[in-house]
Amino acid sequence: MKVVIIGGVAGGASAAARLRRLDESAEIVMLERTGFVSYANCGLPYYVGGVIDEKRKLTLQTPASFASRFNVDARVNSEAVRIDRVNKTVAVRGPDGEEYLESYDKLVLAPGAKAVRPDLPGLDDPRVLSLRTVEDAFDMRDFITERRPGKAVVCGAGYIGLEVAENLVGMGVEVSMVQRPDQVLPPIDREMAADVHLCLRAHGVDLRLSDALESVEAGDSLTVVLRSGARLEADLVVVALGVAPDTALAGEAGLNLGVKGSIVVDDRMRTSDPDIYAVGDAVQVRNFVTGEPANIALAGPANKQGRIAADNIAGIGSRFDGSLGSSVIKVFDMTVAATGINEKQARALGIPYNKVYTYSASHASYYPGGRNMSVKTLFDPTTGRVLGAQIVGYEGVEKRADVFATAIHGRMTVRDLAELDLTYAPPFSSAKDPVNYAGFVACNVIDGRVRQCFWDEVDGMAGREGCFLVDVRGPAEFEAGRIEGSVNIPLDDIRGRIGEIPRDKKVVLICHSALRSYIACRILEQKGYDCCHLAGGYRLYASVMRDSASGSPSDHPCGAKRRSTG
Amino acid sequence: MKVVIIGGVAGGASAAARLRRLDESAEIVMLERTGFVSYANCGLPYYVGGVIDEKRKLTLQTPASFASRFNVDARVNSEAVRIDRVNKTVAVRGPDGEEYLESYDKLVLAPGAKAVRPDLPGLDDPRVLSLRTVEDAFDMRDFITERRPGKAVVCGAGYIGLEVAENLVGMGVEVSMVQRPDQVLPPIDREMAADVHLCLRAHGVDLRLSDALESVEAGDSLTVVLRSGARLEADLVVVALGVAPDTALAGEAGLNLGVKGSIVVDDRMRTSDPDIYAVGDAVQVRNFVTGEPANIALAGPANKQGRIAADNIAGIGSRFDGSLGSSVIKVFDMTVAATGINEKQARALGIPYNKVYTYSASHASYYPGGRNMSVKTLFDPTTGRVLGAQIVGYEGVEKRADVFATAIHGRMTVRDLAELDLTYAPPFSSAKDPVNYAGFVACNVIDGRVRQCFWDEVDGMAGREGCFLVDVRGPAEFEAGRIEGSVNIPLDDIRGRIGEIPRDKKVVLICHSALRSYIACRILEQKGYDCCHLAGGYRLYASVMRDSASGSPSDHPCGAKRRSTG
Repeated sequence: MKVVIIGGVAGGASAAARLRRLDESAEIVMLERTGFVSYANCGLPYYVGGVIDEKRKLTLQTPASFASRFNVDARVNSEAVRIDRVNKTVAVRGPDGEEYLESYDKLVLAPGAKAVRPDLPGLDDPRVLSLRTVEDAFDMRDFITERRPGKAVVCGAGYIGLEVAENLVGMGVEVSMVQRPDQVLPPIDREMAADVHLCLRAHGVDLRLSDALESVEAGDSLTVVLRSGARLEADLVVVALGVAPDTALAGEAGLNLGVKGSIVVDDRMRTSDPDIYAVGDAVQVRNFVTGEPANIALAGPANKQGRIAADNIAGIGSRFDGSLGSSVIKVFDMTVAATGINEKQARALGIPYNKVYTYSASHASYYPGGRNMSVKTLFDPTTGRVLGAQIVGYEGVEKRADVFATAIHGRMTVRDLAELDLTYAPPFSSAKDPVNYAGFVACNVIDGRVRQCFWDEVDGMAGREGCFLVDVRGPAEFEAGRIEGSVNIPLDDIRGRIGEIPRDKKVVLICHSALRSYIACRILEQKGYDCCHLAGGYRLYASVMRDSASGSPSDHPCGAKRRSTG
Repeated sequence: MKVVIIGGVAGGASAAARLRRLDESAEIVMLERTGFVSYANCGLPYYVGGVIDEKRKLTLQTPASFASRFNVDARVNSEAVRIDRVNKTVAVRGPDGEEYLESYDKLVLAPGAKAVRPDLPGLDDPRVLSLRTVEDAFDMRDFITERRPGKAVVCGAGYIGLEVAENLVGMGVEVSMVQRPDQVLPPIDREMAADVHLCLRAHGVDLRLSDALESVEAGDSLTVVLRSGARLEADLVVVALGVAPDTALAGEAGLNLGVKGSIVVDDRMRTSDPDIYAVGDAVQVRNFVTGEPANIALAGPANKQGRIAADNIAGIGSRFDGSLGSSVIKVFDMTVAATGINEKQARALGIPYNKVYTYSASHASYYPGGRNMSVKTLFDPTTGRVLGAQIVGYEGVEKRADVFATAIHGRMTVRDLAELDLTYAPPFSSAKDPVNYAGFVACNVIDGRVRQCFWDEVDGMAGREGCFLVDVRGPAEFEAGRIEGSVNIPLDDIRGRIGEIPRDKKVVLICHSALRSYIACRILEQKGYDCCHLAGGYRLYASVMRDSASGSPSDHPCGAKRRSTG
């Protein structure tokens, strides 16, 4: 059997290695259009910033190591330009520019995705760069070390944009970020992004949300023109506007394409041609939570799909069960993670959901070094099935995201979250882990023991005649910042001062992180009040408000000293 | 309704707070025999060592805060001495030594566990201490700061013993540890403990395994006499020989007792008396994996049980689904975690199991700072259901243990482990997470794609006529240390040198961490060889051997400079 694999990075390289382990006799040819195979795609921004200091660390394998270890004929600078499905051949343009034909019994497509470069004036300037391949990373680092840019504009604030921005700041470059949506990191919801915005500004990033790149004007330096009319001077422009499946070859070969032009595959990673498999960023997968088709460009699923394609070629019936889109990113000292679906997705698809916001210490409060994390959990309001989670914080964020991802994989409910028997010792967690805690709160909501109102409703309620807002924090907290129109009755006084709360109004209870307000709610509800509490507390509300006001970096959780240049 | 709670720490305090939130009108009395409620039990060793620097940080709540916030009558220095189940009263000895009766409608027993103090000569010396209560912690810290002990003997190397030992070393005390089993940390298996032993010795701990305390002789200093005949001089002796359920009161009241004298409860935490609930370290739970009754003294389950008892008293039918015994401990710079059952337990109970050892980087190898962790995964050999996991390493150990715990809770199989869509970015993990990797290897085993032999079998195989051991590491690795009787054929040469391997012998393949030997196995098996590979690789084998030889601390993974005093 002869197997040709188009693409030699995550999915393609995994398929090649796995196939060799399963079938010692197969002839395996792996074609890679760049000069490198099996490279550390996700490490490229850190090479640009010098965090990864050596070129060789970016390449996990070489064509020579693929040959000696796996007896795989790995060919770099070799681009597949045509597939002839009838004669089962691939036309390849080799390093010398000559074309030749390679026959196959089975073909694996792992072409990946390409960086989106919109057709806008001035983007062909050599100072406008993207970051997708090892060559791109070498070019960007060379550019920075040789030209020493003072200012850069990063267009796009997804994973790559943010990682590049952080690395540029680390090299002393002044960075502006331009992002069309009103938030960075689309996998999380806007209110959860507020703390990330504050962190970016605190680290000196000039963050320009709800704006977009219109053109780049070349001169001694570049002028980046935005839709808002703003003109930003820059010595370097990075275009990080996301990626799109690179499926021209598959499309020309007549394979079925789906979402965003991605290659349609079944759960064995087989395309509409039974002799052609496809894996990685270029394929259409099933969203594990919604069941809907999706295109999710992440390294974890790509590697697993490569393995599954190899299994099926070798006669083992492995299946890909869908993708949760689990992701994590370091943003300066913060960590942001998400898994499953967010509220934007739930709304867009009309999926019924409820949500809780919790705010928990990363480890026991009495042990040094812990910091709080903000957790948003989405769940089915009837069954309690966990639909998604977003976590923004510092230490231990990725741990809780992985627990959520495992729970979603197991189709668990918020009751399971409450029950999970997780490891605990003071340096690592609390006896009630943040995930347990999210489960406790969600169970209270689903069982009707407490009603919630949300950060985007409370200002409206404050102005309404029939509502009465009680802030149950201490007087000092209340003085330091409060929701307009609320009155202060500290929780520990509420039993004694209950007469001050009108019985004929809807009572909205507020505290810092929604624990004390929950207790107050329980007290008042049992006394016959119609009450709810502010989910996420004043903390979440204030974070969104500070962000909307472009916030003062000084009181931001990052605690960075450097002030915003914006 | 009047509810009396005996015990005011983890389980008791959780029950009191939850009950109040559910029932504003209940009368709640909480009796605590020590001087403190809701204290940070798990933080005590760190207070002794000064990592937690203030007394007040150890107490999360006070009787005053319980009164003002929860309207709970919390009484410290108040010991329940008798329960009259017929008249539903508790006899209480108050701070003044006087006894009085307290009536109840519902009673919650949360007496916890007591430190085991064997009846051996000399243990009543005031320089022989234990650590269970806040008062114990104050005493031990005062002893250390006032007497400045130069040498200490810690008897028992479970959680408390190890945490105390680490904190004593941190204060400049020379520490010997005496442990009856041949390993520290009974929740993990012996071969997994080898790296922990090496770490302890590298930090200067004089580790005395398979030995036991016989007596303490008092003089200017203490002389600790061991079963082996060894005599250790010490200025301080810490007895940390584990805990036992403190159930004398429950037993005298005629409640059913089970494993280790623990209180028998149903899944609603109700004892054999329908008006009496019991929670925490003193109760018998179901082992989630085996279904067998067990007594598991950990803070996480205690807190959850307190909540469940309160729910059921308030008419909400929550249930406790059993305990996985998930645990984690910091041992100097190492982290050790376990969940589910270990191999010792599986053997003792005759539970069918198979196991894989994997060795994975905590995060992408090309991103700075990652370190390897050693993972042992137990699973059902037929269904693949995950039975337990043990992890020894550094960064990220607790994360993977929590993912395993969640998978076990969801009754997942090793196939699920392989499929889990976990978060990945270079600073946090690899595209194939250590948990995925354990799943991949276990699937290969369960599907018969590779056969394993183990660290305790390979010496025997080396000496057998019909076996042929091939080490597929590089020549430099082979020269640096190898299994006696093995020959070296590096993996990348094996296809070309296959003629050197006799076809009529069982071939045992060996490499560092069992990845290269697995690939070699696949090559040879497909060429018709009868072969297996050494699970855990030479790395695990060498770790156990170095440990058995009391090892040289210098080449130990901890990298600590300080040499063993042993």
